Amino acid sequence: MQRYKLIVEYDGAPFVGWQRQENGPSVQAALEAAARAFCGEETTAHAAGRTDAGVHAIAMPVHIDLARAWPADTVRDALNHYLRPNPVAVLSAQTATAEFHARFSATARHYLYRIINRRAPLALEKGKAWRLAGALDAPAMHEAGQGLVGRHDFSTFRAAQCQAASPVKTLTSLSVARAGEEIAIRLSAPSFLHRQVRSIAGTLVEVGLGRWRAGEIRAALDARDRAACGPVAPAEGLYFVKADYEKA
Amino acid sequence: MQRYKLIVEYDGAPFVGWQRQENGPSVQAALEAAARAFCGEETTAHAAGRTDAGVHAIAMPVHIDLARAWPADTVRDALNHYLRPNPVAVLSAQTATAEFHARFSATARHYLYRIINRRAPLALEKGKAWRLAGALDAPAMHEAGQGLVGRHDFSTFRAAQCQAASPVKTLTSLSVARAGEEIAIRLSAPSFLHRQVRSIAGTLVEVGLGRWRAGEIRAALDARDRAACGPVAPAEGLYFVKADYEKA
Repeated sequence: MQRYKLIVEYDGAPFVGWQRQENGPSVQAALEAAARAFCGEETTAHAAGRTDAGVHAIAMPVHIDLARAWPADTVRDALNHYLRPNPVAVLSAQTATAEFHARFSATARHYLYRIINRRAPLALEKGKAWRLAGALDAPAMHEAGQGLVGRHDFSTFRAAQCQAASPVKTLTSLSVARAGEEIAIRLSAPSFLHRQVRSIAGTLVEVGLGRWRAGEIRAALDARDRAACGPVAPAEGLYFVKADYEKA
Repeated sequence: MQRYKLIVEYDGAPFVGWQRQENGPSVQAALEAAARAFCGEETTAHAAGRTDAGVHAIAMPVHIDLARAWPADTVRDALNHYLRPNPVAVLSAQTATAEFHARFSATARHYLYRIINRRAPLALEKGKAWRLAGALDAPAMHEAGQGLVGRHDFSTFRAAQCQAASPVKTLTSLSVARAGEEIAIRLSAPSFLHRQVRSIAGTLVEVGLGRWRAGEIRAALDARDRAACGPVAPAEGLYFVKADYEKA
């Protein structure tokens, strides 16, 4: 048995999410079907992050096990061949030891939430960002977000269906930066709760629009109550950027 | 009669090009249909550049005439409303004098050709760039391209069906720059011949791959013969960036 670490890019739009589900196509099932078409084997693909429907990935670490030790570049090219026409691409493949696990070995995860702050609908970036017409104050969002950095009970920013054992997580960093009409919200943590990034992004937008004051974000956190969360930001603006490992 | 100058963004993928044609949907027809839906008027939309099938626009100047002097923002919002679900967005609208013509008043046009230089297929940027696996030498492409700057007979880099009166054009500037795996080719000129940018981009790629030496680009230009051109780069990597005017 040989384990392979893959780095995968995908457009989340046509998928019910990373995870295999009854109700539609998933990125996981697309990768597993490509592996089956390549070498006839049934394998389970494990990802560093199980993204929701519509969420994208820039460089998602994934591992699969295959019976034979193929050259890693052959695995990459064959999977890409059989993945067509799905918007899923294996950027790289390398052999990994049996100790490596894409999900459990990850020491940090990085997300990006993209907002395009303009009145006109999106044409070129349709489905790739959240278009918001109201003028957003990015420095105010950044400032308010600093109150969330650190180890906290994030119950407020956690989906009802979240399966994590504990709502206590450590948010390592959060930044909000504007470049022209685009606002990038970046979050890093060892791990995240379900919908945590979209819940935080949507709530920071309330601050950016001037509807919430900065202190209200911290009060919402302290409430430890889902009802205190702002609106959840839509999936199309969210990107899983990458994960870190001690070693691959 | 009131003339309006529009700045329009579009994804060229679903269109037969800017221009109204019998054989499929065009950006021009989409805009004209939106104007008709908005105010019941038949108008002709004129663009600074008549892009080919699959070519995108970041900020295409367009003008239309309407009988009534609506507030320009109303025209922008109404067109965007009726353009849905086409991937065409009116970024801005302003009133213009009858002397303004989006095509004939333009003093310069700017194009971008995007290449993503990697082995894996495109997932997030599918249809938005030319994916090329072979390692490209961007500085060599830039250097070779400088031989095309200036006033020349561009017959080599002109489509057979080009309707321009003369093949003599002035290429104001050409640059090729790499940022990570992305290579941006930028060209500016008062005006271009049909397929000129894609013909030049495709030929520069031959230099970037090491198949052509820099001097061969200049020899191809001097041949003034379409047969001397390299392969024409695909439409999906081409963007009309913007046009300049003396005044709007």
